[in-house]
Amino acid sequence: MYTLLKTDGKAKRGRLETVHGTIETPVFMNVGTAAAIKGAVSTEDLKVIGCQVQLTNTYHMHVRTGDRIVKQLGGLHRFMNWDRPILTDSGGFQVFSLAELRKIKEEGVYFASHLDGSKIFMGPEESMQIQSNLGSTIAMAFDECPPHPATKEYMQASVDRTTRWLDRCRVELDRLNGLEGTVNPRQMLFGINQGGTYEDIRIQHAKTLRDMDLDGYALGGLAVGESHEEMYRILDATVPLLPQDKPTYLMGVGTPANILEAVDRGVDFFDCVYPSRNGRHGHVYTNHGKMNMLNKQYELDEQPIEPGCGCPTCTHYSRAYIRHLLKAREMLGMRLCVLHNLYFYNRMMEEIRNAIDAGEFQAYKKEKLASMGRSN
Amino acid sequence: MYTLLKTDGKAKRGRLETVHGTIETPVFMNVGTAAAIKGAVSTEDLKVIGCQVQLTNTYHMHVRTGDRIVKQLGGLHRFMNWDRPILTDSGGFQVFSLAELRKIKEEGVYFASHLDGSKIFMGPEESMQIQSNLGSTIAMAFDECPPHPATKEYMQASVDRTTRWLDRCRVELDRLNGLEGTVNPRQMLFGINQGGTYEDIRIQHAKTLRDMDLDGYALGGLAVGESHEEMYRILDATVPLLPQDKPTYLMGVGTPANILEAVDRGVDFFDCVYPSRNGRHGHVYTNHGKMNMLNKQYELDEQPIEPGCGCPTCTHYSRAYIRHLLKAREMLGMRLCVLHNLYFYNRMMEEIRNAIDAGEFQAYKKEKLASMGRSN
Repeated sequence: MYTLLKTDGKAKRGRLETVHGTIETPVFMNVGTAAAIKGAVSTEDLKVIGCQVQLTNTYHMHVRTGDRIVKQLGGLHRFMNWDRPILTDSGGFQVFSLAELRKIKEEGVYFASHLDGSKIFMGPEESMQIQSNLGSTIAMAFDECPPHPATKEYMQASVDRTTRWLDRCRVELDRLNGLEGTVNPRQMLFGINQGGTYEDIRIQHAKTLRDMDLDGYALGGLAVGESHEEMYRILDATVPLLPQDKPTYLMGVGTPANILEAVDRGVDFFDCVYPSRNGRHGHVYTNHGKMNMLNKQYELDEQPIEPGCGCPTCTHYSRAYIRHLLKAREMLGMRLCVLHNLYFYNRMMEEIRNAIDAGEFQAYKKEKLASMGRSN
Repeated sequence: MYTLLKTDGKAKRGRLETVHGTIETPVFMNVGTAAAIKGAVSTEDLKVIGCQVQLTNTYHMHVRTGDRIVKQLGGLHRFMNWDRPILTDSGGFQVFSLAELRKIKEEGVYFASHLDGSKIFMGPEESMQIQSNLGSTIAMAFDECPPHPATKEYMQASVDRTTRWLDRCRVELDRLNGLEGTVNPRQMLFGINQGGTYEDIRIQHAKTLRDMDLDGYALGGLAVGESHEEMYRILDATVPLLPQDKPTYLMGVGTPANILEAVDRGVDFFDCVYPSRNGRHGHVYTNHGKMNMLNKQYELDEQPIEPGCGCPTCTHYSRAYIRHLLKAREMLGMRLCVLHNLYFYNRMMEEIRNAIDAGEFQAYKKEKLASMGRSN
């Protein structure tokens, strides 16, 4: 299903064919936490801003409105009115970051909902069942996201359990995909490499994963507090061990610079809340660095956020108007900034793909990093 | 500039030609308080949902971001990227409802900004200057909005002062329209009839106003706590005294039923925050009554809010999805409900115009009121 079209150094230009259409990689997945992009962005908007694939959070959908209800409504695609690919995470990250009273056992995790304190159990089977109910294009394996920092002993035990959980995920998803009435019987499974910043654990785990013939391979537990240099070092050590003819996904990353560096190390898939979260705070991305749209200097500025940008915001509205909306706490201000930022990310990925196609990725990366400056 | 195209009983079908295009009446003005419709609705959206004319609040623009800044940016139309008509209110209503430490004198009103307590003076000249800076299509005269209830003595004195203020508004707007560099030198002025629920004061004031040859005539100080029947009684007494060959505007009104009753009494223009405010709370209008989209009954409901509705929300999204968004406090839920409600209002006005054109307004009104039920 994944075709490696071209390489440029370690950078990969690929194509993943799915039941919901084709994903050209490298790609940035636009994060729709609760089956909606924060900032009043609709699925109609997503098409306008060039989104190829959308990510929805399994944990959030499970605790509200409930994956069984989504299944009764025909799955996430029909629920959201989005006919292109959707990746669901495993719920693990939220269980380990949001939920309360957490207890990890071999069978899975006991925790309390962050919404109402109700007791929930989630293990590999439950995560697969929820994701199967949601009917996403790509399901993620249920893993432990170990705390950062963690002792080497803790990390090794955690990664070993994550491997055992992955086995259970495969068995359960195979079973679910074979059931009658399954929303998406061709749901794919990506496994997740863990190991924190311990290179040897990462490497050993990557070797274990690559022998499992999964639909794709993710790196989890990065961008959780370690330095960018540590993250790049782990990518250097781990990505070359993962199958080149399968997609590689760096979870929760990151800044434009992080993405450029990770593409340069062979990563295909990205997701991050930065563009939507920053947009809601009036922080916008441009090819000349980030701008804080609340700054007084934009009060009389009739230019679009970025002259020449083709996004719906820059096509129609000025910096002065956007600043006014943000100052007046009008929701439209947040929406316009989020639309611009997601367009910026999606457009950058398109530029990256074009650069790899042309064998000019190094020159593109150098120029992009230089023009954006350190703030990105 | 206003042409009375047809009457059907007292109902008027008119057309107001302005420098910013034509307004077909009866019309509902979509309320963009601070140069934006609340609910993340952009001016691009307004075109899709059939908005002819937008209303912006003079007071809000004066206290934040400031009308002088808007003037430097070429006026409200350019600021918002909206090329169709805009009506600005006088600021009076907000001065009398929002502002603090209010002191009314013959020259105008001294008050403190509700934002930062800063001291502001606004009289007829200041209101005209602000509205001239904003460059709206139609400016409203600066009036006192008397409290409800008010003694007859207070009301008479207030209305007399409002008449003197109107004289000063006309003189000042004439002067401003003649200045070089005025944003819209063809800015129109509507006067405002006041008098609370005192029929004799209303009638006397209407007679005074009609002799002043204004661009349009508004009824203010209604829908401020009196019963619907009292409001209709005042309309019955007052509207027939206003020039039929000029537009009549019932300020701040109202429910769909209020609008139907007022059209039936000769009113052309309406504005109200109900559709956007209710939409933000998940309350939506349909031809079969209002619905609370948070209700459990919509959890598994795959229908659009109103089957057959042509709005962007009903075209793409289900009740179940909208309920989920509202429960998850996703801004998109508010936006979708606001878009539907404004479309509903704009579409109802179109139906009203068609019914008057066909000489079938009474039948249309009766059927619409019956189908919507009492909740509207």
